Amino acid sequence: MAKWVYTFGGGRAEGASRLGDLLGGKGANLAEMANLGLPVPPGFTITTEVCTYFYANRRTYPSDLAVEVEAALASVGALTGHAFGDESNPLLVSVRSGAKASMPGMMDTVLNLGLNDISVEALARLAGDERFAYDSYRRFIQMYSDVVLGIEHHEFEALLEYYKDARSLTLDTDLSAEDWKRLIIGYKAKVVELSGKEFPQAPQEQLWGAIGAVFGSWMNPRAITYRALHAIPESWGTAVTVQAMVFGNLGDTSATGVAFTRNPSTGTKELYGEFLINAQGEDVVAGIRTPQSITEAARIAAGSTKPSMETALPHVFAEFVRATEKLERHYRDMQDLEFTVERGKLWMLQTRTGKRTTKAAIKIAVDMTNEGLIGKDEAILRIDPASLEQLLHPTLDPDAPRDVIATGLPASPGAATGEIVLGADEAVQLAGAGRKVVLVRVETSPEDIHGMHAAEAILTSRGGMTSHAAVVARGMGKPCVAGAGAIRIDYASGTMTVADRTFAKGDVVTIDGTAGQVIHGAVAMLTPELSGEFATLMSWADEVRRMQVRANAETEQDARMARSFGAEGIGLCRTEHMFFEADRIVRMREMILARDEAGRRAALAELLPIQRGDFIELFEIMAGLPVTIRLLDPPLHEFLPHDRAEAEDVAKALGVEVEALLRRTAELREFNPMLGFRGCRLAIAYPEIAEMQARAIFEAAAAAEKRSGTAVEPEIMVPLVLAKAELDLVKDRIDAMAKAVAAETGGRIAYTVGTMVETPRACLRAGEIAETAEFFSFGTNDLTQTCLAISRDDAGSFLGRYVGAGIFSADPFVTLDKEGVGELVEIGTSRGRATRPALKVGICGEHGGDPASIAFCEKLGLTYVSCSPFRVPIARLAAAQAALGKELASTA
Amino acid sequence: MAKWVYTFGGGRAEGASRLGDLLGGKGANLAEMANLGLPVPPGFTITTEVCTYFYANRRTYPSDLAVEVEAALASVGALTGHAFGDESNPLLVSVRSGAKASMPGMMDTVLNLGLNDISVEALARLAGDERFAYDSYRRFIQMYSDVVLGIEHHEFEALLEYYKDARSLTLDTDLSAEDWKRLIIGYKAKVVELSGKEFPQAPQEQLWGAIGAVFGSWMNPRAITYRALHAIPESWGTAVTVQAMVFGNLGDTSATGVAFTRNPSTGTKELYGEFLINAQGEDVVAGIRTPQSITEAARIAAGSTKPSMETALPHVFAEFVRATEKLERHYRDMQDLEFTVERGKLWMLQTRTGKRTTKAAIKIAVDMTNEGLIGKDEAILRIDPASLEQLLHPTLDPDAPRDVIATGLPASPGAATGEIVLGADEAVQLAGAGRKVVLVRVETSPEDIHGMHAAEAILTSRGGMTSHAAVVARGMGKPCVAGAGAIRIDYASGTMTVADRTFAKGDVVTIDGTAGQVIHGAVAMLTPELSGEFATLMSWADEVRRMQVRANAETEQDARMARSFGAEGIGLCRTEHMFFEADRIVRMREMILARDEAGRRAALAELLPIQRGDFIELFEIMAGLPVTIRLLDPPLHEFLPHDRAEAEDVAKALGVEVEALLRRTAELREFNPMLGFRGCRLAIAYPEIAEMQARAIFEAAAAAEKRSGTAVEPEIMVPLVLAKAELDLVKDRIDAMAKAVAAETGGRIAYTVGTMVETPRACLRAGEIAETAEFFSFGTNDLTQTCLAISRDDAGSFLGRYVGAGIFSADPFVTLDKEGVGELVEIGTSRGRATRPALKVGICGEHGGDPASIAFCEKLGLTYVSCSPFRVPIARLAAAQAALGKELASTA
Repeated sequence: MAKWVYTFGGGRAEGASRLGDLLGGKGANLAEMANLGLPVPPGFTITTEVCTYFYANRRTYPSDLAVEVEAALASVGALTGHAFGDESNPLLVSVRSGAKASMPGMMDTVLNLGLNDISVEALARLAGDERFAYDSYRRFIQMYSDVVLGIEHHEFEALLEYYKDARSLTLDTDLSAEDWKRLIIGYKAKVVELSGKEFPQAPQEQLWGAIGAVFGSWMNPRAITYRALHAIPESWGTAVTVQAMVFGNLGDTSATGVAFTRNPSTGTKELYGEFLINAQGEDVVAGIRTPQSITEAARIAAGSTKPSMETALPHVFAEFVRATEKLERHYRDMQDLEFTVERGKLWMLQTRTGKRTTKAAIKIAVDMTNEGLIGKDEAILRIDPASLEQLLHPTLDPDAPRDVIATGLPASPGAATGEIVLGADEAVQLAGAGRKVVLVRVETSPEDIHGMHAAEAILTSRGGMTSHAAVVARGMGKPCVAGAGAIRIDYASGTMTVADRTFAKGDVVTIDGTAGQVIHGAVAMLTPELSGEFATLMSWADEVRRMQVRANAETEQDARMARSFGAEGIGLCRTEHMFFEADRIVRMREMILARDEAGRRAALAELLPIQRGDFIELFEIMAGLPVTIRLLDPPLHEFLPHDRAEAEDVAKALGVEVEALLRRTAELREFNPMLGFRGCRLAIAYPEIAEMQARAIFEAAAAAEKRSGTAVEPEIMVPLVLAKAELDLVKDRIDAMAKAVAAETGGRIAYTVGTMVETPRACLRAGEIAETAEFFSFGTNDLTQTCLAISRDDAGSFLGRYVGAGIFSADPFVTLDKEGVGELVEIGTSRGRATRPALKVGICGEHGGDPASIAFCEKLGLTYVSCSPFRVPIARLAAAQAALGKELASTA
Repeated sequence: MAKWVYTFGGGRAEGASRLGDLLGGKGANLAEMANLGLPVPPGFTITTEVCTYFYANRRTYPSDLAVEVEAALASVGALTGHAFGDESNPLLVSVRSGAKASMPGMMDTVLNLGLNDISVEALARLAGDERFAYDSYRRFIQMYSDVVLGIEHHEFEALLEYYKDARSLTLDTDLSAEDWKRLIIGYKAKVVELSGKEFPQAPQEQLWGAIGAVFGSWMNPRAITYRALHAIPESWGTAVTVQAMVFGNLGDTSATGVAFTRNPSTGTKELYGEFLINAQGEDVVAGIRTPQSITEAARIAAGSTKPSMETALPHVFAEFVRATEKLERHYRDMQDLEFTVERGKLWMLQTRTGKRTTKAAIKIAVDMTNEGLIGKDEAILRIDPASLEQLLHPTLDPDAPRDVIATGLPASPGAATGEIVLGADEAVQLAGAGRKVVLVRVETSPEDIHGMHAAEAILTSRGGMTSHAAVVARGMGKPCVAGAGAIRIDYASGTMTVADRTFAKGDVVTIDGTAGQVIHGAVAMLTPELSGEFATLMSWADEVRRMQVRANAETEQDARMARSFGAEGIGLCRTEHMFFEADRIVRMREMILARDEAGRRAALAELLPIQRGDFIELFEIMAGLPVTIRLLDPPLHEFLPHDRAEAEDVAKALGVEVEALLRRTAELREFNPMLGFRGCRLAIAYPEIAEMQARAIFEAAAAAEKRSGTAVEPEIMVPLVLAKAELDLVKDRIDAMAKAVAAETGGRIAYTVGTMVETPRACLRAGEIAETAEFFSFGTNDLTQTCLAISRDDAGSFLGRYVGAGIFSADPFVTLDKEGVGELVEIGTSRGRATRPALKVGICGEHGGDPASIAFCEKLGLTYVSCSPFRVPIARLAAAQAALGKELASTA
């Protein structure tokens, strides 16, 4: 017989944190806290298996569930001294959802359940506070109607506003018990009006209605979207936790609050949180009242005059601090807590591993390792490599002038610039069109999540550090300024106003989430400085990492950045990038327009010293590290003008007839340049180009070696190879050039020749190709294009739909398509190594910087990954995690 | 000890025809004829192993070769009663090359070897003809100097012309013995002048010089080109045959000739050939004198007044006829013979299997099968499937007006139209640019072969039915008119003139190789009628064939032609071709320009009846056979105008703003359309298109079934699939539509849904895809493009070079790249069938009509091949040969 219900409370529990799959995170952790002896209001959890049963059986329950719930209610009643359904001594409960993964704000909650027209009087009597009882009752009606009966919140808010206006009342606290009683009559009438039924008075009916609503909410659109965004399987289901109510709104010795055991922004080891005296939990999260600090230190730092919990409720504070320390030690990670104080008695309502910024995550992991709480491997595994991106990107230049429009809470660090948009849909739309936007809202809610994903930064005019906007933005690693109260937002006119300045949507603002500033226009950015903990973590990662990490770079700046970020060489130097600069493209064009080989050689002779100079610089910057140089790859028409106006300028500069230039351009034009006359096809047709490049490489190597005294061993990479015979032809030219340069310089020239494996055929013929190739580098960008027959430049029109429909689990240009492209990489690697067991095999597509793809490369035993310079630390960490055996699902 | 030399003559031989690898075709067949008791001038063959030794040992010979040659010469001397090197009774020999494969005209020959200043007098005495002796000597000097000493023919011809002009002599026959003696002095002086050495007088030196020249010629550029064109391995080497001279130029009872045992143009069983009285063999082949017919029947047919061999040399003729009958029975194939009559005595100089036109080849194969000479399988295997193309293509409409410029010999049947070109290189160049050309030459030579390959047809002003041009053109299956003597060709001015009409290069002519006519301009063509033997052969092929042959067709004409050519269904109906016609493209454009799904559906509703009508027609034409219909495949921009002028017309026709049209066109434009928004990506994005097409198919099937009473089972093919999930989405729509139409029509709708496998990923994921797909059809055109990253539209700029350099053994768009694309097809087939053992697997790229690719498909066990209608017979025959186990090398 399945067990459907697990009770907790009174210092023990049937569940435990390891039963998260069954009880959901919330239920499991409540059980764990009960087992740890912490003060938890008694309750019970209906398992996720009931949810599974519910959806498998047309939304019905197991037949024995009701009996188990009855028994559990009785046990909660026994522990609290109340009885569910007893109208003179009612047990009130909360009903909450709780899935295995935290889905903040996505599921629905009902508080104060068990109240009805009769028991509300008993509550008033028991609490000695009639106003509290009727306030609780009206909150219950409002929440229950919203969640269970589908009557929107604003229907009741409108009645409340109307009532207050009619009586010139301002705040909810201005309303008396009588006021609430009258409003409750109106609320109940509204329920009859909109649902056609009386508000349910029977506590059992209320309870089962709420349980059904929680299970039902697992399939609401918000939940479905959230799961899709976070790759949470639908099959997990949610649990339902029913728990005895405790009240933070029973006067000045009551309170409610949230806290983190360490600072989730910086990682500093300090109790961090907010609370409100005489309030229910929803008041804190909603961000309507500005909360107070928990510690005295925090109050002073914030310059607040409102007392901290440390001074207002010193005994409760001390007990709370002990509880937080116990929980952090127990869970070996920073905890995110909810608590309520009912008339001086502390109740722990929730604990879970807290979300944090990347900076904080690194500091906490390193600190906890140093504190002996966790080991180095665990520290490495705790950091999401992709999240490093927010540390590696620029921050605002402190010396740049700032036109600060408004200041709010520094809710999520980092800085970003973008156009103002006032709605989530619009944010998605503009971002889809390649524009950078800042999402500006009064408050955010789960309905805005897609817009927050699309935006560069988030700005709200209301809410605190633990408001929805702040929590979600930190999770996403996006800059956020929350509660910038000076800003008035007018959705109707599409504007935001601060004092006498009005900004319309489309206006550019910069958000400094670290300083909490909203700045007009764009602000200059600075390269980030990486903290001591960051360096420590990376050094630990490097200790366990097996694969090398190289960078794709060709400019001096990129090469220097790559080296400073720990790149162990250049995995891809795209020489064509060196030809696009103004002084060089002229020679390149002369070469392309030359009538014969002699003309091409003359133009190439002028490019030679320029190219050699570039390589000398690269070799010097990367001294002692390998540098892989790819021969000219793009089709030649990329170097020619694209329209008549440009052609006229170019013709004048080159001293040629514009018509001749246009004719040559038309000749070279291609239907599918990606599959055209490029790569080593150029080297086969015009070997003099490859010869010039080889000479530049060898002469540069000789010069750099002489100057620096460090050996240089360039790796020459032949692109787009299909067959051994093709590579042989090009390699012969390179080898001949090496001999010629060696004879001229009188030195020995060390180098290797390899190939970029970027066509399906090259993967299949890798066994033969490796007879000639001394290394392989998988060009997974082009390999993805060819394997999938998807042009990256044209994919925008359908690829999103493909990911959305689940045809691909992720954008295959971001995360390697393991099942297709991945098998080709596997075939290429294994066949290549069958021929040449020590074959050096790397990957140099965008995937080289993607953690999921890096994990796959580790499995295949690749020698190195190569990625863009600023992703080098991400790759180092991901490679370390892969070496530790971390499995990563495909994520977009 | 290796045996290097094999003798023959006197009714026996050490060799035999089965030793072709060792003795070359010529040497082996001479030995065979000797063994058969036919009159063969005695001689010996130096083996191809000596050639191998020669090239492996820096052009030296095995040490024991000289001794063996000496002994063989002695044995030849004994049989002839002469002695090599005996100046009073000289043995004269010919030295000829002979490789395993026939390489006509490619290798060099020396006749009359053994003559010198002294033995020439002995020859005059022995022959009783001084003029003959000195003519033979000067011919020897000329030939030997050309072949061995590298002094070109024309150097001597110039001396001869000068000599004749100075003495007002016209023909060579006008020269007396004294004239030749004087000329020989001049010839020898020319040799000293150009080579710095005396012409060799020692017969041994002459012999070894000639042997060395023959072996050396194996590596001359013409031979290398020929081998490359005909896939003959260099390793084979050539043999050298040294044979006693017999003379056809010893007066009116001497003659020389060539013959075929059957007519090589038509295949008719009749002795077919030409001879010249009092001539050497080279005179016939060179086409300078017009030869006489061999049989009386041929003479009468040709309307010639010159006597036939049958009447001129009746006894020799009778012996020759017996020899030809013996040889054909022995070799079980039509033979190509050379013979000489020396003073009434017949000598057989060569026999080999004769080249023939395809029509002749089929008739001969069928006749010989009926005669019991060969079996049906052998008949099938003897016909090169690709050669059928010349039968299947149109011939000139006999009722069309013809402006006949000139008439020549009908040297190779068929007809073609093209621009005049006068040089082989130019022919290659223009053909490469996609232009059709007719190669016009005074005579052709092996140096022109590449130009003959490139041309549509060949025209010469000189030469007979066995001239180089005629033989090679028949081999290539190209129309040829030879010896059109009225035409004067001027290479310098690039013109050809007939009487007062001058045609310049670029002018269009039509060559009717069957009638021997040269016609001005293009002439209307007719669909070919296929002969009775053709039908017989195809029926035999169908008996042994395992794979089905289908056609790629969508128009009524193509479908009818396919069925008449024996297609067993349609393997690929490209529905988009149906949308390009004027009345349809308007609706198509409306659909593309529609703002929303409703607009698209409205336009599609108008396309539905048109599309349904097309399908009804196809189903009726193909009644009882399967029809595979591919859903819309090309990117939508293909249907939109390509420039502003066209856009303005279209905008007017559609009643839309031209700017809006241009905007939409620009939106849809793609960088790489081949890898763009096409194939089933369209069906995923706009399912309404696939739905309309499915409805049209199902409604048409129901209507055609009702009308014809024959069951129709359409196969619906989803293009460009990458993943099972994608195919599932499209199949769901199709299945739903089938249900809907079945409900409307009240009938059962039988159909299958499969996919076109045309991306590497689909091959790799074939196992999963086959869970949904009920059939596979490999779209090897696109699969080649993606596997090789080569756009077929852009490949012109480099692919030729790739084939030329041997990187590809053939154009991969003509013959399947077995090593790359082929492995993908193999993977796709085996994975697909692992899931669904009875999976129907076909191929529908161009490769479906290529014999080498078809042989590969047979090996993989494919169910069918599908090709263009006129290639269906080729595919039927190739599939039969493949089923008989024929291995085909890749050929372009």
